[in-house]
Amino acid sequence: MNCGVIVKVLGNIIMLEGASMFLPLLVSIIYKQEDTVAFVICIALTGVLGFAMSRFPRQSNTIKIKEGVVIVSLGWLLISIFGAMPFVFSGAVESFIDALFETVSGFTTTGATVIDNVEALPKGLLFWRSFTHWIGGMGILAFTVAFLPAMGVGSFQLYKAESPGPTVDKIVPRLRDSAKILYSIYIGFTVLQIILLVLGGMSLFESALYTFGSVGTGGFSTRNNSVGAYNSTYIHIVIAVFMFLCGVNFQLYYVMLKGRIKEALKDQELRFYIGVVGMSVILIALNIHFSIYNNFGKSLRDSFFQVSSIITTTGYSTANYDTWPTFSKAILFMLMFIGGCAGSTAGGIKCIRILVALKMIKREIMKIFHPRAVVPVKLGHKVLSNDMLISISSFSILYILIFVLSTLAVSLEGVDLVSASSAVAATLGNIGIGLGLAGPAHTFSQFSELSKVIFSFLMLVGRLELFTVLALFSKKFWKNEF
Amino acid sequence: MNCGVIVKVLGNIIMLEGASMFLPLLVSIIYKQEDTVAFVICIALTGVLGFAMSRFPRQSNTIKIKEGVVIVSLGWLLISIFGAMPFVFSGAVESFIDALFETVSGFTTTGATVIDNVEALPKGLLFWRSFTHWIGGMGILAFTVAFLPAMGVGSFQLYKAESPGPTVDKIVPRLRDSAKILYSIYIGFTVLQIILLVLGGMSLFESALYTFGSVGTGGFSTRNNSVGAYNSTYIHIVIAVFMFLCGVNFQLYYVMLKGRIKEALKDQELRFYIGVVGMSVILIALNIHFSIYNNFGKSLRDSFFQVSSIITTTGYSTANYDTWPTFSKAILFMLMFIGGCAGSTAGGIKCIRILVALKMIKREIMKIFHPRAVVPVKLGHKVLSNDMLISISSFSILYILIFVLSTLAVSLEGVDLVSASSAVAATLGNIGIGLGLAGPAHTFSQFSELSKVIFSFLMLVGRLELFTVLALFSKKFWKNEF
Repeated sequence: MNCGVIVKVLGNIIMLEGASMFLPLLVSIIYKQEDTVAFVICIALTGVLGFAMSRFPRQSNTIKIKEGVVIVSLGWLLISIFGAMPFVFSGAVESFIDALFETVSGFTTTGATVIDNVEALPKGLLFWRSFTHWIGGMGILAFTVAFLPAMGVGSFQLYKAESPGPTVDKIVPRLRDSAKILYSIYIGFTVLQIILLVLGGMSLFESALYTFGSVGTGGFSTRNNSVGAYNSTYIHIVIAVFMFLCGVNFQLYYVMLKGRIKEALKDQELRFYIGVVGMSVILIALNIHFSIYNNFGKSLRDSFFQVSSIITTTGYSTANYDTWPTFSKAILFMLMFIGGCAGSTAGGIKCIRILVALKMIKREIMKIFHPRAVVPVKLGHKVLSNDMLISISSFSILYILIFVLSTLAVSLEGVDLVSASSAVAATLGNIGIGLGLAGPAHTFSQFSELSKVIFSFLMLVGRLELFTVLALFSKKFWKNEF
Repeated sequence: MNCGVIVKVLGNIIMLEGASMFLPLLVSIIYKQEDTVAFVICIALTGVLGFAMSRFPRQSNTIKIKEGVVIVSLGWLLISIFGAMPFVFSGAVESFIDALFETVSGFTTTGATVIDNVEALPKGLLFWRSFTHWIGGMGILAFTVAFLPAMGVGSFQLYKAESPGPTVDKIVPRLRDSAKILYSIYIGFTVLQIILLVLGGMSLFESALYTFGSVGTGGFSTRNNSVGAYNSTYIHIVIAVFMFLCGVNFQLYYVMLKGRIKEALKDQELRFYIGVVGMSVILIALNIHFSIYNNFGKSLRDSFFQVSSIITTTGYSTANYDTWPTFSKAILFMLMFIGGCAGSTAGGIKCIRILVALKMIKREIMKIFHPRAVVPVKLGHKVLSNDMLISISSFSILYILIFVLSTLAVSLEGVDLVSASSAVAATLGNIGIGLGLAGPAHTFSQFSELSKVIFSFLMLVGRLELFTVLALFSKKFWKNEF
């Protein structure tokens, strides 16, 4: 393994993180908050350490798969560790594990919080917290659209004409090209949503923070009651729509911008996503209308907001859906696993994998009658190879396996099954909000330190599409055989 | 489709069922019970109707896949409908849906009951109820070991050297040969367990009934407190051991009887099954020892009984495990999905599929570093084809999909999520007992009629390995294209 280049790249990442802390520092200075010094220390620390690391002696600048896996996994962990420091240095969060949980939750765009009273946080930290979502979202776009396909894995792979195979030289230029386009769209959405929220009467500061949370599908809020604190249908709908839009494959927006709108709308994953959202919104709206609300408009609004928030794995809430009937809660629980589209900042298993799995099942049923027929599984015009199908189903099964085993581990602390399992689903899927103790009326502060460490790990594992992190734990990885 | 032969075979099955009702009739006469007339009517009814159907005019005796699927699905349904009649005719169960639920639960060896006070049932019905487990168990052995492999699907397929392809002529002789061996072992276990229970002081009548429930991995009891009603460690252990033994692939016993014991013990699925049982027993025993029991012997006994009962999908209980800590309940919930070994009467996803899925996941992780390497997934010395792997993962994913959608449907009646989901898992996996309202302290009588119909359907779908029943609902099936 070329350790030199790993240290160098990680150094660059840390320096970038330090640079991005100038924004919360500015916020802190403008609003004269008590967290100014904390940011100054962290900028100095990350600057010096990052610079030193970036000068680390190395044999070459070659980044192979192994180095890539280490950089991505360690990178996400390191920025979380350094990103947690402002919380500790400012005294806002006492326990380092809590601060780390919060920052991992930020960078992985999960949005699960351990801070019971966010309204008491100084503004610099509030900004930094939500800004980690926005930075994390950019990292994910690059990761899923460029890095994973170059490695020959990941859901986005399905959009490529053929598996490119992992070649060193392709990773960097691909990453740059794809990322540039996606980042423009990402920034475009950000600017647009901030403007729309400001027009709705929200302060610029809060507009920016809720936008970071929606566009990055994160979910950190500035209020203890999340978006529910705003008594404005306009604001609810703007945020719900942007969450929904940011759960879509970003490359489709690129296709649309090029004028090929019809082509984009024919995308099967998009149609599946819209179908699931539509069905869920209607079913939940009817269910809560007849059981609680007795107001179909309000039912529809709250249902759309919550469905959009959960399927895109954002995690905002406008109502305490934990008091909704079991049917509605069960639908939301299901959406936690489905997640958004590939090529977005959303987490979960992803619509495309679920869609392909359904096609696989359909083919298996057909095979009973035509056992020798070769029936291809298609996505649009593309025939999916058996290797691809195995890879997709392995991912889905592994996802459920991690969910089950982690639920077992968390249930050891004695919380009820729904709280334990939904908390695991909420962190593994990068949603940030679940049911019971992990529901909208609670924060993760009630879980034990050990469970918080497990949740932090799950957020990283989920964010990095399982295999990337798990590869680090395989024996093969540490053998010097290639 | 050759409808004539379908009607003929179904007629024979119904006649056989009628013949098997002579045993409960005998019990009823010996014990002078009030259900004698009901059995006489049912024997007459099934005899006349079955005979008439078996004489149905037909073009040929050819049974192709399509006919096979219809016979198996309709057959299981028909014997449940006729098997439900003694309950209704005797007046013991008022609602036909309840009686049908009970009989489907019997023949599918599920063991879920809607009868709150089984101790009040006349002895003929009690016998018939448990006897359906034993008959159902025989049906399943023939179905999974002969019918499904002949169709080229099912978990047992993995044990064959190669996919034989569905040829008409092979189905019947294969079924006869394999079934004969397995039935001898099945009957052997039955006789042995009855003797051991009688030696433990149980009456012959109850010994027979608990044996039917254990050997068929069913779970119907003669007491309201299930096996917990017997305050005898000996009886608990005998039943637990036999449940455990009957969750093993029956062909391995055949191999052992031939003297090739070492070969049988090398079976990877067997080792996986023993490993899961061992781990679960120890973890639960420790968990309940320190939290409730404070008696490690009793903890170990109850833990072994419950693990054995759930993983083999039997559903007996010796303790109200619903009051155990969440960790223990979560393990049991997980075991409901794993199920027993292929080639046994147990339900669930089956150990072999879980084992292969784990191997698939391991390979996917390896592939990250060797994307072009062809790494085979092996089971023993056998390399599994990609088609096989896709078939296995499709099954597992479909299993979870049915679980999720059915939980949604059942949750519409407003029960809590744990009750709804565990009741679905308990019926789909043919276990018969879950958590909450489906837990050991309750029966399924509290669920709505609609939910009971869903549960009955799930028991059949789970028992017939999903695809067989779902094939009936595919458009392809009803097109006359082959």
